[in-house]
Amino acid sequence: MSMSETLEQVSANKCFGGWLKRYRHHARALDCEMTFSIYLPPQAEQGKVPLLWWLSGLTCTDENFMQKAGAQRVAAELGMVIVCPDTSPRGLDLPGEHDSYDFGSGAGFYVNATQKPWSRHYRMYDYVNDELPSVVRQHFPVNGREAISGHSMGGHGALVMALRQPGRFASVSAFAPVVNPSVVPWGKKAFGNYLGDDRGLWTQYDACELVAKGASRQPLFIDQGENDDFLEEQLKPENLEAACEKRDHPLTLRRQPGYDHSYYFIATFIEEHLRYHARHLKIA
Amino acid sequence: MSMSETLEQVSANKCFGGWLKRYRHHARALDCEMTFSIYLPPQAEQGKVPLLWWLSGLTCTDENFMQKAGAQRVAAELGMVIVCPDTSPRGLDLPGEHDSYDFGSGAGFYVNATQKPWSRHYRMYDYVNDELPSVVRQHFPVNGREAISGHSMGGHGALVMALRQPGRFASVSAFAPVVNPSVVPWGKKAFGNYLGDDRGLWTQYDACELVAKGASRQPLFIDQGENDDFLEEQLKPENLEAACEKRDHPLTLRRQPGYDHSYYFIATFIEEHLRYHARHLKIA
Repeated sequence: MSMSETLEQVSANKCFGGWLKRYRHHARALDCEMTFSIYLPPQAEQGKVPLLWWLSGLTCTDENFMQKAGAQRVAAELGMVIVCPDTSPRGLDLPGEHDSYDFGSGAGFYVNATQKPWSRHYRMYDYVNDELPSVVRQHFPVNGREAISGHSMGGHGALVMALRQPGRFASVSAFAPVVNPSVVPWGKKAFGNYLGDDRGLWTQYDACELVAKGASRQPLFIDQGENDDFLEEQLKPENLEAACEKRDHPLTLRRQPGYDHSYYFIATFIEEHLRYHARHLKIA
Repeated sequence: MSMSETLEQVSANKCFGGWLKRYRHHARALDCEMTFSIYLPPQAEQGKVPLLWWLSGLTCTDENFMQKAGAQRVAAELGMVIVCPDTSPRGLDLPGEHDSYDFGSGAGFYVNATQKPWSRHYRMYDYVNDELPSVVRQHFPVNGREAISGHSMGGHGALVMALRQPGRFASVSAFAPVVNPSVVPWGKKAFGNYLGDDRGLWTQYDACELVAKGASRQPLFIDQGENDDFLEEQLKPENLEAACEKRDHPLTLRRQPGYDHSYYFIATFIEEHLRYHARHLKIA
């Protein structure tokens, strides 16, 4: 077994009859040590079960969702593994890497960077899309059926990964996703630094652009709080609505009155998202 | 309106159709500014509802339970306000106050200190038992029915407050409580410093001693993880079992295999506790 296939268990907490575990491993795609969280429902002790990927937002680690969303209760009922990757490479000290909350550490934006000094490590698309799934399939009782969801920057990641790979995920959903990063401050800063000026490359990581290209027909299920402080400047769900309408792309966008960008919003609606994914994963 | 009755809203997050709010106020009992969290279920917009007090454990603030336990979902269904006080006075800088996790800030142990320098501020029993309830009743739609629960040091606080005041709370429960602080390291350190050598005073803050005195007949409902790292040295549920057996005091102590001291344990069983309290509060 090569070093890259070795998992070191960091912690294990019994939770709703299953186990929440954290593992550290060497990520080849990122050339650094990474930690991820995995919730194994009670059903995983009897056989293989489907898997939901959760991609977190800016400043998060692999822990926030597991601590705050309350998803394990429903995953334990449905028999669903949940995996939360971290949101950027860790343990490095690249110039400026830790200077801002919306770029560098905690802000990998699920892209493969092409620009120095980021291109050596900041390859979160490959890590989350290929390397970590391979590790998970090798070490845990998953049955090959996968769905994906995420929040904010992670909602962007989930939409992009699903739209670029028709058929890869049984279903995709998002909470307050960055749907059009090419035109908003968070995205322009991240893409400019990670990807440089190649606007053609930007479009491969932009849900609105991917819908416009019409590569996938997969339905999109999105919840968005109407009192979200980032709604108008960074999230712009109306841009995705327009893109979907133009291509007749199936979109369910629910605007939730009073809800903000926090995990209290996610906790409120995560059960509906998990049950949506369970139907597509054929376990409900 | 006096200064002590003024509440400053710190934040508000919509959550499961209700609102999680944080308020800052001047606590007379503690002679400092304090922050508390309150969850107002949707039913509180229509009329008065019952109230559950949640007392947190060592190192916690008013926020941990609201972020990690997932209780708002059930409280929103049942129509129950939840209030989480902080775990000690704040904003002070007494000698040694911030030196250890199990004494001073974050570790008020819900006692009224008699020893200098703690006696001026560390009066958490009066704050949680009298002053904050008065503030809550004055400002929020609560109907006078109250229950109490807590975790670890907060489980100790909940048991002590209920046992000392028969009839005050409709019901009491606890997760991994410190049931016999007078004889364990956490309690001996805290009581020795806050209360001095007066062992008679210690007994007023010790659930095992209060049961032994037989002052109350209120049933105790407790969950305890069998893989809790603090079980043998600090928690000693067997001491409470013995005290209850001797006095024929009603006790439901559930030992949960595999569970530890974390909020993942609390999250797993909080729904059963809330439904237990709801029955006693006459809303289920």
